[in-house]
Amino acid sequence: MLNKLMIKRMIEEALIEDMNYGDITTDSLLDESIMGEAIITAKETGVIAGLPVAEATFKILDEKIEFIAIVSDGNNVSKGDDIAIIKGSLKNIIKAERTALNLLQRMSGIATKAHKYAEIVKDYPVRIVDTRKTTPGLRSLEKYAVKVGGCSNHRYNLSDEVMIKDNHIKAVGGISEALEKCRKAIPHTTKIEIEVETLEQLKEAIAGGADIVLLDNMDTNTMKEAVEINQRRVILEASGNITEERLKEIAAIGIDVISVGALTHTVKAMDISLNLK
Amino acid sequence: MLNKLMIKRMIEEALIEDMNYGDITTDSLLDESIMGEAIITAKETGVIAGLPVAEATFKILDEKIEFIAIVSDGNNVSKGDDIAIIKGSLKNIIKAERTALNLLQRMSGIATKAHKYAEIVKDYPVRIVDTRKTTPGLRSLEKYAVKVGGCSNHRYNLSDEVMIKDNHIKAVGGISEALEKCRKAIPHTTKIEIEVETLEQLKEAIAGGADIVLLDNMDTNTMKEAVEINQRRVILEASGNITEERLKEIAAIGIDVISVGALTHTVKAMDISLNLK
Amino acid sequence: MLNKLMIKRMIEEALIEDMNYGDITTDSLLDESIMGEAIITAKETGVIAGLPVAEATFKILDEKIEFIAIVSDGNNVSKGDDIAIIKGSLKNIIKAERTALNLLQRMSGIATKAHKYAEIVKDYPVRIVDTRKTTPGLRSLEKYAVKVGGCSNHRYNLSDEVMIKDNHIKAVGGISEALEKCRKAIPHTTKIEIEVETLEQLKEAIAGGADIVLLDNMDTNTMKEAVEINQRRVILEASGNITEERLKEIAAIGIDVISVGALTHTVKAMDISLNLK
Amino acid sequence: MLNKLMIKRMIEEALIEDMNYGDITTDSLLDESIMGEAIITAKETGVIAGLPVAEATFKILDEKIEFIAIVSDGNNVSKGDDIAIIKGSLKNIIKAERTALNLLQRMSGIATKAHKYAEIVKDYPVRIVDTRKTTPGLRSLEKYAVKVGGCSNHRYNLSDEVMIKDNHIKAVGGISEALEKCRKAIPHTTKIEIEVETLEQLKEAIAGGADIVLLDNMDTNTMKEAVEINQRRVILEASGNITEERLKEIAAIGIDVISVGALTHTVKAMDISLNLK
Amino acid sequence: MLNKLMIKRMIEEALIEDMNYGDITTDSLLDESIMGEAIITAKETGVIAGLPVAEATFKILDEKIEFIAIVSDGNNVSKGDDIAIIKGSLKNIIKAERTALNLLQRMSGIATKAHKYAEIVKDYPVRIVDTRKTTPGLRSLEKYAVKVGGCSNHRYNLSDEVMIKDNHIKAVGGISEALEKCRKAIPHTTKIEIEVETLEQLKEAIAGGADIVLLDNMDTNTMKEAVEINQRRVILEASGNITEERLKEIAAIGIDVISVGALTHTVKAMDISLNLK
Amino acid sequence: MLNKLMIKRMIEEALIEDMNYGDITTDSLLDESIMGEAIITAKETGVIAGLPVAEATFKILDEKIEFIAIVSDGNNVSKGDDIAIIKGSLKNIIKAERTALNLLQRMSGIATKAHKYAEIVKDYPVRIVDTRKTTPGLRSLEKYAVKVGGCSNHRYNLSDEVMIKDNHIKAVGGISEALEKCRKAIPHTTKIEIEVETLEQLKEAIAGGADIVLLDNMDTNTMKEAVEINQRRVILEASGNITEERLKEIAAIGIDVISVGALTHTVKAMDISLNLK
Repeated sequence: MLNKLMIKRMIEEALIEDMNYGDITTDSLLDESIMGEAIITAKETGVIAGLPVAEATFKILDEKIEFIAIVSDGNNVSKGDDIAIIKGSLKNIIKAERTALNLLQRMSGIATKAHKYAEIVKDYPVRIVDTRKTTPGLRSLEKYAVKVGGCSNHRYNLSDEVMIKDNHIKAVGGISEALEKCRKAIPHTTKIEIEVETLEQLKEAIAGGADIVLLDNMDTNTMKEAVEINQRRVILEASGNITEERLKEIAAIGIDVISVGALTHTVKAMDISLNLK
Repeated sequence: MLNKLMIKRMIEEALIEDMNYGDITTDSLLDESIMGEAIITAKETGVIAGLPVAEATFKILDEKIEFIAIVSDGNNVSKGDDIAIIKGSLKNIIKAERTALNLLQRMSGIATKAHKYAEIVKDYPVRIVDTRKTTPGLRSLEKYAVKVGGCSNHRYNLSDEVMIKDNHIKAVGGISEALEKCRKAIPHTTKIEIEVETLEQLKEAIAGGADIVLLDNMDTNTMKEAVEINQRRVILEASGNITEERLKEIAAIGIDVISVGALTHTVKAMDISLNLK
Repeated sequence: MLNKLMIKRMIEEALIEDMNYGDITTDSLLDESIMGEAIITAKETGVIAGLPVAEATFKILDEKIEFIAIVSDGNNVSKGDDIAIIKGSLKNIIKAERTALNLLQRMSGIATKAHKYAEIVKDYPVRIVDTRKTTPGLRSLEKYAVKVGGCSNHRYNLSDEVMIKDNHIKAVGGISEALEKCRKAIPHTTKIEIEVETLEQLKEAIAGGADIVLLDNMDTNTMKEAVEINQRRVILEASGNITEERLKEIAAIGIDVISVGALTHTVKAMDISLNLK
Repeated sequence: MLNKLMIKRMIEEALIEDMNYGDITTDSLLDESIMGEAIITAKETGVIAGLPVAEATFKILDEKIEFIAIVSDGNNVSKGDDIAIIKGSLKNIIKAERTALNLLQRMSGIATKAHKYAEIVKDYPVRIVDTRKTTPGLRSLEKYAVKVGGCSNHRYNLSDEVMIKDNHIKAVGGISEALEKCRKAIPHTTKIEIEVETLEQLKEAIAGGADIVLLDNMDTNTMKEAVEINQRRVILEASGNITEERLKEIAAIGIDVISVGALTHTVKAMDISLNLK
Repeated sequence: MLNKLMIKRMIEEALIEDMNYGDITTDSLLDESIMGEAIITAKETGVIAGLPVAEATFKILDEKIEFIAIVSDGNNVSKGDDIAIIKGSLKNIIKAERTALNLLQRMSGIATKAHKYAEIVKDYPVRIVDTRKTTPGLRSLEKYAVKVGGCSNHRYNLSDEVMIKDNHIKAVGGISEALEKCRKAIPHTTKIEIEVETLEQLKEAIAGGADIVLLDNMDTNTMKEAVEINQRRVILEASGNITEERLKEIAAIGIDVISVGALTHTVKAMDISLNLK
Repeated sequence: MLNKLMIKRMIEEALIEDMNYGDITTDSLLDESIMGEAIITAKETGVIAGLPVAEATFKILDEKIEFIAIVSDGNNVSKGDDIAIIKGSLKNIIKAERTALNLLQRMSGIATKAHKYAEIVKDYPVRIVDTRKTTPGLRSLEKYAVKVGGCSNHRYNLSDEVMIKDNHIKAVGGISEALEKCRKAIPHTTKIEIEVETLEQLKEAIAGGADIVLLDNMDTNTMKEAVEINQRRVILEASGNITEERLKEIAAIGIDVISVGALTHTVKAMDISLNLK
C-alpha cells in the first residue's frame, strides 16, 4: 500500500530538514569508514508499523547500510524487545537515526492505538476506520499504520469517493438532487456517501441511491433505529463524538463502519530507541 | 520564525495530497462563483497557533479568499470562541478546509501543551524546550507552535549546534578530545553541547569548555549536585524521563533548561471546526 | 475537476521545456512594453476543451495578460469561429502561444472525439468512458476533456478502484477468493471491478459481490446474454475491440458502460490558431 | 539523444500519477516476492520506438526487474512479434505496465508515422521534420521517436534557433531589419530562419543573410520558383497544409526540408500489449 | 533573454538556502509592519547587470516591496552612484538583501569584465564570447551579464550547437567523417563547429562543410594564416590561452570570434551595498 | 560536511542545465558501449577541493563510471600533477566533463585562496573565516572548500546565529535592548553576535552579554584597544576592508576571527583539465 516513489521523496525531504548542510557533530568526530552495528529496541509495549519506512530512511542516506528486521509490521512487541539490527557506516547510521525513529515511532503509535480499538470490537462485524485528519505530507504512512494495527481506511482524499455534507446539500437544494447530480458527474467506479443528521434524511438518502450513509453525531438509540430502517441496503457509518468507551456499544447495534479521527490526529509516539552495539 | 517560501511549498504538497485530481463532491455540486462566509471556532479550551499557516492554505488555493483572524497566535480561547472568519468562493473554502484545519489543530495542540508546561514552571528562571522529535516535514511549524505556547526551542537540526553524545565520545576516546576536535572543526558562531551521565563527566565537560551540558536521565538529587558543581559556568540541560510531574521539582533546583520530546511527538490535536455561516 | 495547483506545475514545466533560456527570436526583436491583442480561432469544426488551461498558460508567464473567452468548454465551434481574445504584452503572448495551443488543441481533439461517440449512443442509457491509456503527465487534462465532450470517466488511477484482471485471479486462485481478499483489504468507500472472459466467470463474479464486471473482448451476442444473466445486479462494462461502428450495437443491448482507450490514446489535435490582430 | 536525468523525472511523475498511494488491487492480491515473466508483443505492424524508456519505467519502480529487448528501436515489427521480455517481481511488473505501455505505444505510433512519411520521399534528398507541436512534457521523447522512424528534427525549443515570423517582422519594420537585429543579438553558433509568404520576401530574406527560409503555405508551383530563385544559397523549408499526398510532389521540386506538425500532434498509438507468461 | 520561470525557481532556492527556518535576528527584533526604504549604491566603478534579478529576489519574498531602478542594466556607474531604491517592509528587505546582492554583485562583476574586453576590441569586427565555464545553476544569468557588458554568447549548452573536439574526431576516424555523421543526425537548424589544431585540419574542416572552426591554442601568426586560408568561408573562432593582452592582436588579424572562459569562471564581484535610509 | 542528498540535487540540476535534451555532438558520434579512460590534471599550482563532488557528477550520469582519486581534498598540487582517473563509457565521461570541472575548478580556486590566507596568519591563534557572500545554490560547496583550504566558516545562514547589525539596533532602540530581546527569543543553543562601530558600543555589547562582537571597519589601532578592553570575555571578529595585506597585522594584535568576503565572492577558478588517455 506504500508507493515507494512517494515515500522516497518524503524521506529525502525529511533527511534534508534534519541535516541541512551536515551533521556537524558527527562530521567532526567520525570517519565514514568506521563500521558498526546498531539495534532498535522497543521501550514499551505496542504494535510495530513502519519498518520498511525506517529501512528506506537509512538506505536513502547510504545504500550500503544493511537493515535486518527482527519483527514485522503488525507484530506486538513488549518493552525490551529488539525490533531491527542496522549494520554499516556508524556515521551514516547516526545521521539517519532521528528521522527513521521519528517515522517509526509515530507509525507504531498509530498502529498501537488502532490495534487497541480493533480489539475492543473484534467480536462484531464492524470496521473502525480513519479519516482525513492526518498529518499533512504523511497521509499514506498514517493510513498504512491504521491498517497494520487492524483497523481499516476511509477514503484517501477528496478524489476517490463522493462525500456529500450539509453544506453541499444546502447549496444544491436537497439530498436527492445532490445524489443525482453527483452520480451523473462521477465515474461509475466511484461510490457516493452522504452525511445525514436525522432519520428522515437517512430514508431520503437510501431512496436516492447512496452507497454509504454517514450518521453524524447521532446517539446510540437513534443509530439503532437507523440500522432497522436501513435493512442493509446501504453501508451505515457512525461518526462524530466517538470515544473509546462508545466503540463497543455502537458496534453491538449493527453499524457497519465507525470512523474515528483520533486514530491519526491524536497520537502518542511509541517509545523506541536506537543504540549502538 | 516561519519561512514563507518553505511553508508555501509544504502547503501546496498538502493540498495536492488531499485533493489529487479534484474534490469530486464539491466540483460536482458547487459553482466557483458562489460566494460565502465560514467561521472557524474552538470546540475546546486551548492556545491557538498557526493562524498565518491556515490563512496561507486558503490563499494558496484561491488568492481572492479573505481571512480575518479574530484572535492571534498565542491567545487562549475557550469552547465556542470564534477564531477566524473566511470569506470568498464557498467551493474553494470547502476544498481547503481540511488541510487548513489539520495544520491549525496540530499546531494549537502543541501550543496548548507548551502553555501548560510553561505555566507549571513560570516562577522559575528555567526554559522548557522541544527536541528534534518532530513530525518529518513539519519541524518549523511545530517549533514555532512550541514558542507560541510559551516554551522555547532547542536546536533546529543537526547543523546548528554541536551535540556530542555517548557514541561520539566512544568513537573519539574521551570528553576532552571530543570537545577539542569539534571546537576546531566548527564555526566560532556555533555552540557545543555534550551529554553526560555522571558528575565526573560533568566536571570534565566544564573543564573542556562545553557551552551546554545535557544531564542525561539523572535523578533530581544528582542534578542538584550538578548545579552546585557547575557554578553557572555552563548551561545545564535536564533530559530524559521528564514527566509533567517532575517539571516543577527540576526547575526548583536551578537547572537552566529542561528538554521534553513529548512537546511535539505526542500531541492531542485541539478540537477546532469550520462552519459555513 | 481540474486541480489548479497540479495544472500550474505542469504548465510551468511545459513552458520551461519550450523556452529553456529564452525565446531568442522574440527577445531580440520585441520590447516587453509593446501591448497588443491576439485572437484564437477555430480552423475546423469541433468541441472546445481546455480554455482555463490555455488561460492559465498565458497568465503563468505574465499575470497581466487578459484572457477573454468567447466560447466555453463544451461548446461546438465551426471553422472560422473565434474562441478567445488575449490582450497584453505581445512579447509574452507570442512566447506562451505554442504551449497554450498544444494543450488546447489536444484537449479539444479529445472533446471532439468524445462528443462524436456520445452522440452515437445518445438514445441509450449507456456511458462511454475513457481508460488509463492517457498521456503520461496529462491524465487529469485528458479525462477532463472526455467529460467536456460528453463521455464519462473510468477510474483515475490504480488507487481509486479495484480492478481485478486475469493475472490477479491466477495469482490468488479464483474469482471468489480474489473478490473476498480485496474486499477485506480496501476501504468500504471503494468499488471492486473484475474482468471476465466467459459467462461462467460473470456468474461467479456476481455471486462474489463484485460492483462492476468488465466483459473482456466479448462479441455482441455473448454480451447480450450477460445482460440477461445480470439482471442489473452489477454494472456491466464492455471493453476490448470497441470500434466506433460497434458503439451503437453494444449500447442497444443494455450494457451500462463501454470503455474506449482510443478516446485518449489516439487523438487528432483540433486545428486552432492564434493570430495577432 | 535522450537525457536520462530528464527522462527519469518524467517517468517518476508518470508512475506517481498512475499509482498515487498504491495499486490497491495488486497490493491486496500479490506478494512482492512472487517472481514471474511478462512479454511485450506487437498487436499490429509498426516501427518500435521507446524501448529504453519502457525499460527505465520498470527499473525506476524496481531496479531488480530485468528487461530483455528482443528488437531495437527503429525495427519494423509485425502483428504477433515479440518485442521484449520482462523478468522480476510480478507485482511490480503489473504496477508499471500501463505507464510503460503508454509511453512505448505513443512513441512507436510516432515512429511508425515518421517511417511511412520517410518512405514516401526516400528517393529525394529531402528531410521531413517535426515541429514544436508536441505533447507538453514529452517533447524529447517525441522528437526522438521521429528520428527513430526515419524523419528528422526541427528546432527543439525557442532557444536553439531564431525563427522570425510575420508578427516579428511587423514589429521591427521589415525583413532586413529583423535579420540584422537578430544576428547581432544571438550567438554566432545559432542559425536564423525566417518565414516568408511571397517570392519577393524570399529574395529579401536571402539578401539579408538568412540561413533558412520557411515558405509558408505556398502552392507547389510557387515553391518551384522559390527553388530556382534560391540557387541553393539558403535552406528552403516548406510548411503549412502539408498533407501526406503532397509530400512526394514537394520533394520532387527540390525543396530541402518539409515540416509536418501532424508527425507529433496527431498520433495513433501503436497497439502493443503485455502478457504474463 | 532571462526565462522568468527558471529565474524564479533559482531565487526561491537561493532564499531558502540563506534563510532556512527564518532570519532569527530580524524575526526577533523587527515587526513586519515597519515600513522603510533602502538604497543600493555602487562602491566602485563598473557596469551594472542583474537589476531585474535583484528586483525579483525582493518580490519573491514579499510581493508588496517596491523596487525602483535608478540605472539600467548595462549602465556604467561610479563609486557612490545610487543604483536602486527599495521600499516596503524593512524586515523583508533585510531578509532578502544578501541574496539579492550576491546575484547583483556577481552579474555586475561579469558585465564589468565583459565591458572592459569589449572596449579593447571595439575598433574591430570581432566578437568576444563566453564559454560553458559558468557557475552550475547560474548559466543563464551569467551569459546574460556577458551580453549586458557588451560581449556575446557562445552556445548555451550541449544541445544547441555541435562542437566536435579532438576526442570526437578520434572516435570516428577523421574530420570529414565526423562532420558528415553529425550533419545527418542533427536538425537542419543547428550549426556545426569543429576544433582544429593545425592548418591542415582547418582545410579539411572547411572542405567538410563546417559552419564554424575553432582554432585551438594557435599562436597569432598561425591564426593569421588561417584567416587567409579561410577566405571568409567559415566563421573562425580563436580559443585557448586568450589573455587580456592578446585580445587586440588577435582581433587585428581578422579572426571573427574570440572565446574567453575567464569571462565567467574568474570573476571579481562588483562592490555594491544596500543601506537603509 | 557535505549533505549528499542536497549535493545530488544540485548536480542533477547542473547536468540538466548543461545537457538539456542531449549532447548532440557526442550522441551523434559515440556509442555508449565504447569504454575508455580519462585523466584529470592540474594545469597550475593550487589546493584541490571538490573531488567527492566531481566523482558524484560522473556517477549521477552513469553509476558504472569508476572514479579513482589520486590526491585528496586539501592536497597541494603543482602544474602537471594528476588528480584523478576516470574509467567507463567515454560518451558519458565526455558529457559530464564540463559540469564536473566547473565545480572542481571553482572549489579548488576557493581552497587555494583560503590556503594562501591561512598561511599568512599561521603563527597566530586567529581564524580567517568566510561570509554569506557565496554563490546562490553553492553555499555548502564553497564553505566546504574554505575549510579544505585551511580557513574556517562563519555562520551558514540566517538561522544558525544571531547577528545584530546597525539597522537592527536602530529598530529596537539600543544595543542592550537588542541583545536582551534576541536572547529571549532564540534557543539556548544559539550564539549572539553584534556589530559595533565604536569602542563605546563594544563595551555595551560585552556588558549586554554578546558572545561575539564584530568590529566593523575599524583601523588596526582601534582594534588593538578593543582587544585590551575585551580581556577575552567575548570573541572579537574583525570585518570590513580586510585586504590580504592587513591580515597579518590584524592577527598580530590578538583579534580572534577575521572575516573576508572575497574568499568566496571573488574567485579565480583553478586551471584543471580532463584528457582522454
